[in-house]
Amino acid sequence: MPIYNAPVKDMQFVLHDLLKIAETDIPGYDELDRETTQAILEEAGKLSEQVLAPLNKVGDEQGCSLENGVVRTPEGFDDAYEQMRAGGWMGLDADPEYGGQGMPYLMNCATGEMFVSSNMAFNMYQGLTHGAYSAIHAHASDELKAVYLPKMIDGEWSGTMNLTEPHCGTDLGLIRTKAEPQDDGSYAITGSKIWISAGEHDLSKNIIHLVLAKVPGGPEGVKGISLFIVPKFMVNEDGSLGDRNAVSCGGLESKMGIHGNATCVMNYDGAKGFLVGELHKGMRAMFTMMNEARLGVGLQGYAQGVVAYQNALAFAQERLQGRAVTGVAAPDKPADPIIVHPDVRRNLLHQKSFIEGARAFAFWGAMMIDRAHRNEDAAAEGLISLLTPVIKGFLTDKGFETTVLAQQTLGGSGFTTEWGLEQFVRDARITMIYEGTNGIQSLDLVGRKLGADGGKHVMAFFELVKTFIAETKGEDEAFDRDFREPLKAASKDLQAAGMFFMQQGMKNPNAALSGSYDFLHLFGHVCLGLMWAQMARAARKSLEAGASDEAFYRTKIATGRYYMARQLPATGMHLKRIESGAEPVMELDAANF
Amino acid sequence: MPIYNAPVKDMQFVLHDLLKIAETDIPGYDELDRETTQAILEEAGKLSEQVLAPLNKVGDEQGCSLENGVVRTPEGFDDAYEQMRAGGWMGLDADPEYGGQGMPYLMNCATGEMFVSSNMAFNMYQGLTHGAYSAIHAHASDELKAVYLPKMIDGEWSGTMNLTEPHCGTDLGLIRTKAEPQDDGSYAITGSKIWISAGEHDLSKNIIHLVLAKVPGGPEGVKGISLFIVPKFMVNEDGSLGDRNAVSCGGLESKMGIHGNATCVMNYDGAKGFLVGELHKGMRAMFTMMNEARLGVGLQGYAQGVVAYQNALAFAQERLQGRAVTGVAAPDKPADPIIVHPDVRRNLLHQKSFIEGARAFAFWGAMMIDRAHRNEDAAAEGLISLLTPVIKGFLTDKGFETTVLAQQTLGGSGFTTEWGLEQFVRDARITMIYEGTNGIQSLDLVGRKLGADGGKHVMAFFELVKTFIAETKGEDEAFDRDFREPLKAASKDLQAAGMFFMQQGMKNPNAALSGSYDFLHLFGHVCLGLMWAQMARAARKSLEAGASDEAFYRTKIATGRYYMARQLPATGMHLKRIESGAEPVMELDAANF
Repeated sequence: MPIYNAPVKDMQFVLHDLLKIAETDIPGYDELDRETTQAILEEAGKLSEQVLAPLNKVGDEQGCSLENGVVRTPEGFDDAYEQMRAGGWMGLDADPEYGGQGMPYLMNCATGEMFVSSNMAFNMYQGLTHGAYSAIHAHASDELKAVYLPKMIDGEWSGTMNLTEPHCGTDLGLIRTKAEPQDDGSYAITGSKIWISAGEHDLSKNIIHLVLAKVPGGPEGVKGISLFIVPKFMVNEDGSLGDRNAVSCGGLESKMGIHGNATCVMNYDGAKGFLVGELHKGMRAMFTMMNEARLGVGLQGYAQGVVAYQNALAFAQERLQGRAVTGVAAPDKPADPIIVHPDVRRNLLHQKSFIEGARAFAFWGAMMIDRAHRNEDAAAEGLISLLTPVIKGFLTDKGFETTVLAQQTLGGSGFTTEWGLEQFVRDARITMIYEGTNGIQSLDLVGRKLGADGGKHVMAFFELVKTFIAETKGEDEAFDRDFREPLKAASKDLQAAGMFFMQQGMKNPNAALSGSYDFLHLFGHVCLGLMWAQMARAARKSLEAGASDEAFYRTKIATGRYYMARQLPATGMHLKRIESGAEPVMELDAANF
Repeated sequence: MPIYNAPVKDMQFVLHDLLKIAETDIPGYDELDRETTQAILEEAGKLSEQVLAPLNKVGDEQGCSLENGVVRTPEGFDDAYEQMRAGGWMGLDADPEYGGQGMPYLMNCATGEMFVSSNMAFNMYQGLTHGAYSAIHAHASDELKAVYLPKMIDGEWSGTMNLTEPHCGTDLGLIRTKAEPQDDGSYAITGSKIWISAGEHDLSKNIIHLVLAKVPGGPEGVKGISLFIVPKFMVNEDGSLGDRNAVSCGGLESKMGIHGNATCVMNYDGAKGFLVGELHKGMRAMFTMMNEARLGVGLQGYAQGVVAYQNALAFAQERLQGRAVTGVAAPDKPADPIIVHPDVRRNLLHQKSFIEGARAFAFWGAMMIDRAHRNEDAAAEGLISLLTPVIKGFLTDKGFETTVLAQQTLGGSGFTTEWGLEQFVRDARITMIYEGTNGIQSLDLVGRKLGADGGKHVMAFFELVKTFIAETKGEDEAFDRDFREPLKAASKDLQAAGMFFMQQGMKNPNAALSGSYDFLHLFGHVCLGLMWAQMARAARKSLEAGASDEAFYRTKIATGRYYMARQLPATGMHLKRIESGAEPVMELDAANF
């Protein structure tokens, strides 16, 4: 049975040593002192370790089943769901006006990482609800909000997102689902949606579907898409449940991972739906949900890496094979633990340096979202909008890679189901695909975000790096060599890539798009390099201030040093690839592949 | 249902345009003219496409079952096995003295790639037999050979390799299985072995286990290991089967992939065994098997990439989403096929340029083995010994990566079991682990092979590259720019890395071992860069000679150009990582990870 230990200490480091959240001017953050966040994280950690983690393998092995339209979730999921509700976790950052706890989104991310590490498939049931909550909260009428939000925040009802149809996923302009206006102001929704996570299940009393559909007579393509609430059960005036709506689960997808989550075909046969936001402006409303969902998926990616690493490390410290090349390390044992071997350490440090950097990056991003919302800070809004595809794409690609590396640490045991590593690999794999494949993320980054508002946000990012580099000049010799200089070099690579796109962009859009994926990774590395430089500096300052846990802070610096020396050099490779331009990619005729 | 098309044309290109096999001085190669190899490859292709490929998903879904000691393979495997036997494929390159067809090993690899692409789990039953055949053929007494080889070559009997025990895989010095000498000259074998592929099944009439065990009183560690033949059924004087031997399957492993192959726990309870080769020299005999097996696993790695790529390509040519950024490509359709999008092309070309380069590398390696054996060429033996860990490690890491990229091409469909891509990913994953994890391969490369015979073999490799670069100077301007110069630069990186190891090696072995994994990849890229440069040159020469299939040769050059521009730049990154030395890897205390 795989282990999971909630990384409370490391999260506290990110929140307080690095981000210094209690000292910011973000409304609500003043309440987040060390003691408060410690208490919240410990509670979420306990739930994750004791309730969710033990169900992860059960969920994988049992999966979900569909019988007569009813979807059964794996054993124990219902009880865990009730414990999540009882703890108030589902409405942690939700609007107090509707019964939420009104905490910052940041805390939702921190606790969310734990829930995902311990049981990703299970956590999707509430994760989707959160996304649906956000879209309704941001765009629906007060009447609809009053009806739906309180019970979704409570978890009594859950939510879904319905975008994809069999013939279109990425290209939503092609959707065929129809919404016909009815005399009572509602719409009759007809069509079929696929890959609907948590589309049907037995954990909540009602399921609130958010559905993209086209009202006849509207504009062609994405400009004619509207968003609708379609409840599984109609809701009576008094809030009680009425008739079953004409929406049903037509099948469950058989898939590589996340077996514990029901991936449904949903059929709408004239189901009653209610317009959310303006007619034909459904994409905008959906984007509220998708941007949040993309950050959530980035978090899923590295969170699977977190638990995979913990298991790889435990194995490497126990498994005895061979002897250290520089001399026997454990003379009382028949062989040394494999963590003595350089290549095993390389593998573990690759994992560790990524996940700790990723955590900092994700939490920083969450803080930016809070700043954007709570301070109505347009600069923060712009920056997080730019970074969203990087967080989604980079953290899921590297998160998956981390699970594969962790599996490798275990050798043959990693391939067996018994040790559980292979499940982390299979579960993590979906994060590179859903909420827009990582290729689509790179297109969003290069084709849209980079030039948004005249390139203002990417300039702001470079300014931020530049300021940090300027401020830390001459501060510490080792820091300068191990962190500041590598960050400077990596940032220069990123700027060169941006420059290449600008020069090519006008005359040859394919040149930029041929390099978009590499650009996303290059950007991701610079972000993690920045995080590591900031973390190393924070750790050094804590040490200088006489922090008691010296080993923790020294380890932090050493782990960062690994990242800068061994991961960051990837930026040069990505730049070279980008600068090779469109020709190697576009030259071949499609027929000759 | 996934597709599979045997790549006969591309194999013919490698065999004849690139390697010019019929023109070499390797005994037996003179018979391999274009027509002969075409006929062999077409036959193997037909079997792969029509018989093996349709069973791949069946095998994955049904898996193997164990009841009362009997292992049942998936439906249809028995019939396919008989067709493989009937076609003489199992003894294609086996010794004619024992009933084999005596073809070069190269042809075994070429046909083997097809068998693996179409059904990896199935092909392991005969693959393991081949390895066992080779060890017996090279090391056993004439009596044992006469008894066992003919029926193994025929496929009536199959073979296995028994190395791993629960407490040791990599560190075989720790094995506990005992072999007690008996009065009749045989040995009584007692112990338990795990992860025995094809250890028990219903496809062959007898199973010949090759088992590592220790004879009491022998030297400690690996120097006290001997190799034994332990048949499932004893063999009577007349060759008929006698009593069941005291060896049995104690359980089947539940695992991530290759479900169609039975991975067994094998229990030996005083089973009768026969010594192969000299007492206490079992490791040497086992290495004969392992080296061949390692090349076979490298082949498995890229072969899974081959079939995955074919399916990704078919999807990309059919799936309609979005429009080409430079203008509508398919005006008669609601959207363009996704192959118009630069990032989809990048992904496909990454796959294509790897697998075609890998095929050339593997076939070249197989030719070296033939040269080593058939010409008793020590230089060829030394070079292939050096390259074996590169072929195993690089082709499986990149092969797995290729299946993941191919899965990504399909978006959400790639995650469903229906489309079959996820099976290729799960099956390919084991290749990075078994026959020595890729970390172990890198240790073998840097710790053993690099310095073997005074570094003679790596010098020979550099000489080979240097000669090619010198010979092709000024031959063609485009070739110079796109192939010759990048190869030169990559080779320089490899030499710099080797130099770094040499300088560090004496005083700090950890510095070399901390960079071993990167060195393996750096080496692999240079090998594929060399292959691509040679292929591009061969294609150009064929074009100049007026070859009829112009599109094929032009595509070959364009695909190579992609590899050089977009994959080869990885060498710089690997060099930087290597040159960062031991400190980032060794600094942390094991307790502080």
